[in-house]
Amino acid sequence: MAYLLADLATQTGSKLEGDDCLIEGIAEISSAGSGDIAFISNPAYAEHLSTSSASALIIKAELLDKCPVPALVTENPRLVYAKVANLLYPPRKSDAGVSPNAVVSSLASIDKTASIAAGAVISAGVSIGAGAQIGAGCVIENDVVIGSNTRISANVTVGYGCQIGDDCIIHSGVVLGTDGFGFVKDGDTFLKIPQIGNVVIGNNVEIGANTTIDRGALENTIIGNGVKLDNQIQIAHGVSIGDNTVISSSTAIAGSTHIGRGCLIGGLVGIVEHLNIADNVVITGRTMVTRSITQSGSYSSSTPMDTTENWRKNSARFRRLDELARRVANLEKTNKSAD
Amino acid sequence: MAYLLADLATQTGSKLEGDDCLIEGIAEISSAGSGDIAFISNPAYAEHLSTSSASALIIKAELLDKCPVPALVTENPRLVYAKVANLLYPPRKSDAGVSPNAVVSSLASIDKTASIAAGAVISAGVSIGAGAQIGAGCVIENDVVIGSNTRISANVTVGYGCQIGDDCIIHSGVVLGTDGFGFVKDGDTFLKIPQIGNVVIGNNVEIGANTTIDRGALENTIIGNGVKLDNQIQIAHGVSIGDNTVISSSTAIAGSTHIGRGCLIGGLVGIVEHLNIADNVVITGRTMVTRSITQSGSYSSSTPMDTTENWRKNSARFRRLDELARRVANLEKTNKSAD
Amino acid sequence: MAYLLADLATQTGSKLEGDDCLIEGIAEISSAGSGDIAFISNPAYAEHLSTSSASALIIKAELLDKCPVPALVTENPRLVYAKVANLLYPPRKSDAGVSPNAVVSSLASIDKTASIAAGAVISAGVSIGAGAQIGAGCVIENDVVIGSNTRISANVTVGYGCQIGDDCIIHSGVVLGTDGFGFVKDGDTFLKIPQIGNVVIGNNVEIGANTTIDRGALENTIIGNGVKLDNQIQIAHGVSIGDNTVISSSTAIAGSTHIGRGCLIGGLVGIVEHLNIADNVVITGRTMVTRSITQSGSYSSSTPMDTTENWRKNSARFRRLDELARRVANLEKTNKSAD
Repeated sequence: MAYLLADLATQTGSKLEGDDCLIEGIAEISSAGSGDIAFISNPAYAEHLSTSSASALIIKAELLDKCPVPALVTENPRLVYAKVANLLYPPRKSDAGVSPNAVVSSLASIDKTASIAAGAVISAGVSIGAGAQIGAGCVIENDVVIGSNTRISANVTVGYGCQIGDDCIIHSGVVLGTDGFGFVKDGDTFLKIPQIGNVVIGNNVEIGANTTIDRGALENTIIGNGVKLDNQIQIAHGVSIGDNTVISSSTAIAGSTHIGRGCLIGGLVGIVEHLNIADNVVITGRTMVTRSITQSGSYSSSTPMDTTENWRKNSARFRRLDELARRVANLEKTNKSAD
Repeated sequence: MAYLLADLATQTGSKLEGDDCLIEGIAEISSAGSGDIAFISNPAYAEHLSTSSASALIIKAELLDKCPVPALVTENPRLVYAKVANLLYPPRKSDAGVSPNAVVSSLASIDKTASIAAGAVISAGVSIGAGAQIGAGCVIENDVVIGSNTRISANVTVGYGCQIGDDCIIHSGVVLGTDGFGFVKDGDTFLKIPQIGNVVIGNNVEIGANTTIDRGALENTIIGNGVKLDNQIQIAHGVSIGDNTVISSSTAIAGSTHIGRGCLIGGLVGIVEHLNIADNVVITGRTMVTRSITQSGSYSSSTPMDTTENWRKNSARFRRLDELARRVANLEKTNKSAD
Repeated sequence: MAYLLADLATQTGSKLEGDDCLIEGIAEISSAGSGDIAFISNPAYAEHLSTSSASALIIKAELLDKCPVPALVTENPRLVYAKVANLLYPPRKSDAGVSPNAVVSSLASIDKTASIAAGAVISAGVSIGAGAQIGAGCVIENDVVIGSNTRISANVTVGYGCQIGDDCIIHSGVVLGTDGFGFVKDGDTFLKIPQIGNVVIGNNVEIGANTTIDRGALENTIIGNGVKLDNQIQIAHGVSIGDNTVISSSTAIAGSTHIGRGCLIGGLVGIVEHLNIADNVVITGRTMVTRSITQSGSYSSSTPMDTTENWRKNSARFRRLDELARRVANLEKTNKSAD
């Protein structure tokens, strides 16, 4: 796609300064060439202004007098960049219709504007909405509901009875609606607890590659509207995640934990079961959350990196930290009694 | 499925108190309605007894006088709940037979009561037992043996030569029998070590979505009877896991480590290579295990969550913990010599 | 395959000591039988020399006088073992040609010596090199380039436009070229940033099961020659990894981080975004890397395992470590002023 810079200004709510020109691509400021637009979000990169070969730039007003090319001026260059990129690079869309190499139950209901790729298997009772796209090799089990314009990439598995809203993006390798991990000890062995809830996903949700979301034991697992999940996240049975919460890769959330709206949860975080996390909580990468968080704010755990040599010494002391604290208390007592 | 409460009592070894009635479903006590049975495991929830709309409850004898509806009385409500749920919600079973859309080698041996779904690929030399179910899109490589009544969900990959016992459940996205991660340095590059062992899985094992188990380098990787593995677990080459050990999600176990029977291993745990973990060991979530554990008991590592502000201060001190300990020792020496 | 020991000596650059014999397999020294060769890398295992039933051994010269069977003598028994294993167990090779059960676009270019298994879906514009093997159920999207002799196991997804070099091994469940995790806050919701870079993978790269590598936001994500990635690793958009770097399982690397050549990165490591890691850096398992590393060397974080009882006490003290340090400083001041 190509756009006139003036049209990009109109459609992104930014202000054109300088001559109009044709924009065909977007690139990093250091590698942009003719026909490209680039953006500067961080003023530290302003030095690139004079040397960039971009045809246009997205900048804040304060950089305008240093800008040698036409510009889109905005208070939020990163947001305008995203809007421009969505115009220049619209999502790839497969042709509507069912591939002759897909296996689709006669008892499934597929909107005629939906697209089902080769190798997909669609079971009885499934409903797929207008403009939805199901990638190659996907398996959509019985009675699944997929909303309109939702795009499911290749090799995704959606378990029976799960519901996915409109305008979602589900990346490859995702598994939705697998059994939750529930057992009861019965002598030396463990008896499986049937998992009879579903997974219910709102609208405008994005789920990264190889992320897994279990169905609920009794109640549903719920992913709110606008939630963004990165790759390789694990969401256990009965979890609920509030609207517009964003979670980075490789994080695991244990059963029946409820997470509020608008949270930002880093990568490699662990959250144990049956907790409540308030709205607008920030949890930094690798934090281990073992108690509920009732107030918005930023929370952390983990320990800082060091050279292995130093780390060994400090780490060994950690194992006697309680003793060290007692020794300090003793010293304080001695000092006091010596007064 | 629907059962008379009296039949549920008989089949679960619990005692019916009150009138018989028809039970059609199971639900949380707070959302249960007519025809549902619910359970109270934790006496703290006894307050719900009077307000629940459930048709029957599973309770301990001590709650019987407060229970307004018929009850199944037992010392272990959670176990009876699991048994009831298994009766009311038997596993979904696909029809026996090979889908015309599966690709099955003429050199594979498929029991006539087994079910092979659309899009599955079954290679030469594979043996699939009575009542086994292979989901859509599964790839079962050469010479794999799958026991009777084992259920393999959609999009699972089982590498050549692997063996899976009876009554197992393998969830979607699981990869069994991929090459272990073995290399030898050869100058600046690394030479691959062929991985010639297999993966051997016992009976009554459950493996969660997107979990990966590598084949052994020389010896087999072994998963004992009754082992339960959650989602996104990584088991490296040559690991063995003893019977009835349970491991939560996102845990990684490195090569040639041997884990005993009856262990409970939390989520996000890491266990390094060539260790031995005794029977009946509990390892709490996020623990990093870098030495063998020779005695049953509970083991932990990681640090507690705090506000990011407090955490930053404490965490910075961690990098000088050894120095702090030396300073305390110095103070003690000074105090002593001052005596 | 079977080889004469003398031929193995020649082909691996080791020295035959003793009589020639036929070698048909390789095994652990404790389980090796007739026709097997075993190796001793660690002199601690020399006790097995006298009891092993192996037909031949791979050893260092210093063990030769204790060795009761013919031997391949070398300074690096592990390397010779790997070379012998590669001769005895050459990679499994599928027959050349396209399975009648694969779905291959007429606009794809498949070398006639390549192999495409059943259930694979190959899109328009794809180029697959000589001797390459594409496993069952793989989905190769538009315009992907796959080099010669690269082997892709079952159920792998390669996103449009990605490039994979020669002699690579990609294990099952891998997802390459999914969208990076990029959003801009737009009011209460998040706007997706189109991810327009690709993934470019060098030669002789191995990628473990269920590992995910995102396409770049603007620039490509780059995996250098000879890189070895274990299972369940997450590589975010715009990351670059230098030649011959090795990364163990379940590690996550955030966006735009650049990792040098020849690094050894342990399992469960987290590396945050926009860092630079120098060449030849070692990062031990579970380390959280939150700042760039400019010098080669070994780096660590995490805390040591203990009994849960001890850990609780020490861990509780961690939350007041800053206060403890201040108290120690106070004591030092008091002591000094008391001088």
